[in-house]
Amino acid sequence: MLTHGHFSMTLRSLARSHRLQRHMLNLYLRSCTVESVFDRKHSTEARLKAGNGKETTKWGIALTGALLGIGTVLIYGVPKKRVAQAELTTHTVATSTFPLYSKKDVSKHASMESRVWVTYEGEVFDITEFIELHPGGSRIMLAAGGALEPFWALYGVHKNEHVLEILKEYKVGELNSAEKDEPVDESDPYSQEPSRHPVLKVNSMKPFNAEPPPYMLTENFITPTDLFFKRNHLPVPRINPNDYKLEIERPNGKTQDKPLNLTLSDLKTKFPKHEITVTLQCAGNRRSEMSAVKPVKGLDWNSGAISTAHWAGARLRDVLLEAGYTEDCSQAQHVHFEGLDRDMTGTNYGASISFQQAMARENEVILAYEMNGQELPQDHGFPLRVIVPGVVGARNVKCLGKIIVSKEESGSHWQQNDYKGFNPCVDWDNVDFASSPSIQDLPVQSAITEPHPGQKVTPNFEGELTVKGYAWSGGGREIVRVDVSVDGGKTWKVAELTGEKQKTGQAWAWKLWQLNVPFPSNISDFTIICKAVDSSYNVQPDTVAPIWNLRGVLNNAWHRVHVTVDTE
Amino acid sequence: MLTHGHFSMTLRSLARSHRLQRHMLNLYLRSCTVESVFDRKHSTEARLKAGNGKETTKWGIALTGALLGIGTVLIYGVPKKRVAQAELTTHTVATSTFPLYSKKDVSKHASMESRVWVTYEGEVFDITEFIELHPGGSRIMLAAGGALEPFWALYGVHKNEHVLEILKEYKVGELNSAEKDEPVDESDPYSQEPSRHPVLKVNSMKPFNAEPPPYMLTENFITPTDLFFKRNHLPVPRINPNDYKLEIERPNGKTQDKPLNLTLSDLKTKFPKHEITVTLQCAGNRRSEMSAVKPVKGLDWNSGAISTAHWAGARLRDVLLEAGYTEDCSQAQHVHFEGLDRDMTGTNYGASISFQQAMARENEVILAYEMNGQELPQDHGFPLRVIVPGVVGARNVKCLGKIIVSKEESGSHWQQNDYKGFNPCVDWDNVDFASSPSIQDLPVQSAITEPHPGQKVTPNFEGELTVKGYAWSGGGREIVRVDVSVDGGKTWKVAELTGEKQKTGQAWAWKLWQLNVPFPSNISDFTIICKAVDSSYNVQPDTVAPIWNLRGVLNNAWHRVHVTVDTE
Repeated sequence: MLTHGHFSMTLRSLARSHRLQRHMLNLYLRSCTVESVFDRKHSTEARLKAGNGKETTKWGIALTGALLGIGTVLIYGVPKKRVAQAELTTHTVATSTFPLYSKKDVSKHASMESRVWVTYEGEVFDITEFIELHPGGSRIMLAAGGALEPFWALYGVHKNEHVLEILKEYKVGELNSAEKDEPVDESDPYSQEPSRHPVLKVNSMKPFNAEPPPYMLTENFITPTDLFFKRNHLPVPRINPNDYKLEIERPNGKTQDKPLNLTLSDLKTKFPKHEITVTLQCAGNRRSEMSAVKPVKGLDWNSGAISTAHWAGARLRDVLLEAGYTEDCSQAQHVHFEGLDRDMTGTNYGASISFQQAMARENEVILAYEMNGQELPQDHGFPLRVIVPGVVGARNVKCLGKIIVSKEESGSHWQQNDYKGFNPCVDWDNVDFASSPSIQDLPVQSAITEPHPGQKVTPNFEGELTVKGYAWSGGGREIVRVDVSVDGGKTWKVAELTGEKQKTGQAWAWKLWQLNVPFPSNISDFTIICKAVDSSYNVQPDTVAPIWNLRGVLNNAWHRVHVTVDTE
Repeated sequence: MLTHGHFSMTLRSLARSHRLQRHMLNLYLRSCTVESVFDRKHSTEARLKAGNGKETTKWGIALTGALLGIGTVLIYGVPKKRVAQAELTTHTVATSTFPLYSKKDVSKHASMESRVWVTYEGEVFDITEFIELHPGGSRIMLAAGGALEPFWALYGVHKNEHVLEILKEYKVGELNSAEKDEPVDESDPYSQEPSRHPVLKVNSMKPFNAEPPPYMLTENFITPTDLFFKRNHLPVPRINPNDYKLEIERPNGKTQDKPLNLTLSDLKTKFPKHEITVTLQCAGNRRSEMSAVKPVKGLDWNSGAISTAHWAGARLRDVLLEAGYTEDCSQAQHVHFEGLDRDMTGTNYGASISFQQAMARENEVILAYEMNGQELPQDHGFPLRVIVPGVVGARNVKCLGKIIVSKEESGSHWQQNDYKGFNPCVDWDNVDFASSPSIQDLPVQSAITEPHPGQKVTPNFEGELTVKGYAWSGGGREIVRVDVSVDGGKTWKVAELTGEKQKTGQAWAWKLWQLNVPFPSNISDFTIICKAVDSSYNVQPDTVAPIWNLRGVLNNAWHRVHVTVDTE
């Protein structure tokens, strides 16, 4: 009878001698282990296979899966009895108390060289030996030196007792529960901020700005809330929902100009709840490529400053009608949103959109109190934010405090002296912010999320390479095509698009795309390029330099990812 | 006292010895001689100066104008007495009957080598000696070998007696009034077509497709109707307006399904008249640049398949409401337009737009019966056509016969198997027309209209070159910037935009633009590039090849014009 130890060793040697097969195994399993909103049925099946497989089912899978996937299904599906036996034969389990470690101690073990430690529910594990066997491939390293919980929250397959049993094999200690958190500096306006997912690439701590690794964006059509890019201009305020009131200025001369005040409960009960799936993108998404041409001022966003969520709230139109505005109100040209987040001088975040944009039913502008079926999180504007579908993130004001209707655009810094595009020859010595319009709806965009720049790639069994990415356009314009080239733009293949069905002119959410391209032969490295087309047949420009601008916004040039061929 | 003959000779020698000054003179005078809708005040002043200048005014202008403009103002403003004297001294005027010429005879005199003849009101003139003195420069050659009337209709400055008097000096004959027109071939479906302006570049005679020289497009914000590009898919029908009826199908089950029939008078009197300035562009505009990359199927349009007019008619929305449709009609997804023009098999031209597009008040879709304040001309859809602002020309169906509301898109050839964009690697062997959406609103576009490709250019007094062009985007997106480069795209200058004020999201008309760029030094030739940005910050792609498609549509790559430096 085979023991778990034998299984592990067999798999390990298999893996070492068959690098290509390991890649296939990972590719196959990734589709089973990612909790996909897209295809719950598939995901559920995968979980069933991984978690509840009985002997017969298991061997059935093993036979049909041949060298693909078998190892992991067995690892995650190994029966308790065998684990117990394996523990006795392959590990010396301490019967005495485990040593205590601090989080800092654990964080020092974040590489193969220093060994890889992780924590789970107060216990510390050395998973160095497991890394190569992990079905999700090297992604397990994301948790190296820290907690597993945030990642298992993303990848539902881990939530079963068999996985826990395997983990226990690697236990080396416990977290010191007496360890105290860092003392809070009450004078720091950022001291009350929420905790964030460790996988995020932090572009600025104060204010907190961070993006997920691009490949994670295309694992789910709806971005998990924890991974949704965080873009804060100011300290995130802590707001007591019971004290919260949204103030809406009345049209001149109506109801004696006393503003309309709405509580959260008013917003939830007095207006129909409207639900929409909307992609938000920061104007600075892909700024790092612009900086590579010539330095710009701004946070160094990679291609992850874009995410998609399902939002719910009251229609702004309904709220404005309630406040007394009508569609033909001549004084009403712009709608200002004032956030409750403010800087040290007491200036609140603010922005505006056109009154027409706000009022047109088909634009579906909402005051959202829910994100992905949950209460809006603090980082995304609790308790209420504006969602302006198809429009740059900066106008989707968070922690909304006040709405003002005006003949003029918002005078805020972010509306007037930021978030505007310029000719590439405009610099900080000659820039005239009044000469450009504020960015509202955004141009057509696409990016490659897999492989990542610099990745060593190998062809699959069919001699192909799988390329993945996202594509989106502003103003409700749907993505109608994504082209991919691996020969510098000489030839292009059309990618397969996936996404929710959306109405014409109301395509607020992105499309994810995927394509197997023939693996270029006899070269050591190559560049993958993608470009998208939207329903207005707008296309992306070929290069970054001619759209370079001093603020590094609006980079929608063809996305290029340079990879090297793994010849090992 | 100076005679006209002396004036002419003095000017001629001046012009010969001062090429640069002649250029300036022409540049200066062009602004005075073009009848600009844009700036009627300016235009009127120019006409007054040119036509009604008294002695004192004339000399005032002469003094202030110095070497600029003086010659022409004098030529066009020379008093009768002097002309009479000039005739006696410089020309032998035949007192006998002039020789008779046919139009064909005249057409043989269309170059300096064969001498330049023109006709006006039945008289024939040899204007070879006047060419160099013409204030409008070499544009006078547009009329060479033909009639002056169509050109004088465009350039109002000619409509005064002094110009006529000068012309009479050059009379050499009369047109043979007995000359018969070509016999009409009644079996030819194209035999009843209207006459067209001779300046148009004809891309196809049957059906008639033609475009104006690009530089003429930027002489007026509103394109003169005669110059508006002509795009016919089929023979132009002759329709008796008294018999005309527009048929609109009723929603299912309403008014016993009897269609709503509207006469021209109904359309003009029963619905409010709505007026809009709209630029129309053929999807094939700038196809010739695409053909240069690789041959495509389609008419060889240069950059003149775009024009702007002021249209008036009934709102389509009002007509559909009258027919019984409501905004929330679930069966209503598309609105089909059927033209009265038909091919030999009896198939009518047809196209469709979305029902939402048709009904949204802000989209301003109209059933137009007027173009530039006149009855719709035959070539532009008499007696009624659809104007869908911001949408490709092909959906602006002419000679409208029938409107059908449907759950499906129009099944017409032009909707389903034409006017669609494809990946550049799709060819006629593998094209699947069902895989691409029909073109509706168009992407951001711009082109250089002056100088023209291959032109020999010289710097002005300031060492600059004046570059002109147009820019437009579909979907009501306004042009917010045009960049011009004369160094291959390394540096860019921002052009000055002119145009009518338009509402946000309803910018249906183009912007004209102009820029004086520093004349590149020490080179014999260079390329001028322009690129535009619209209010969604969409930009034009850098090159044509990556957007090439087998039908040669949607070319909106940077426009490049290669010129040579005139070193004489």
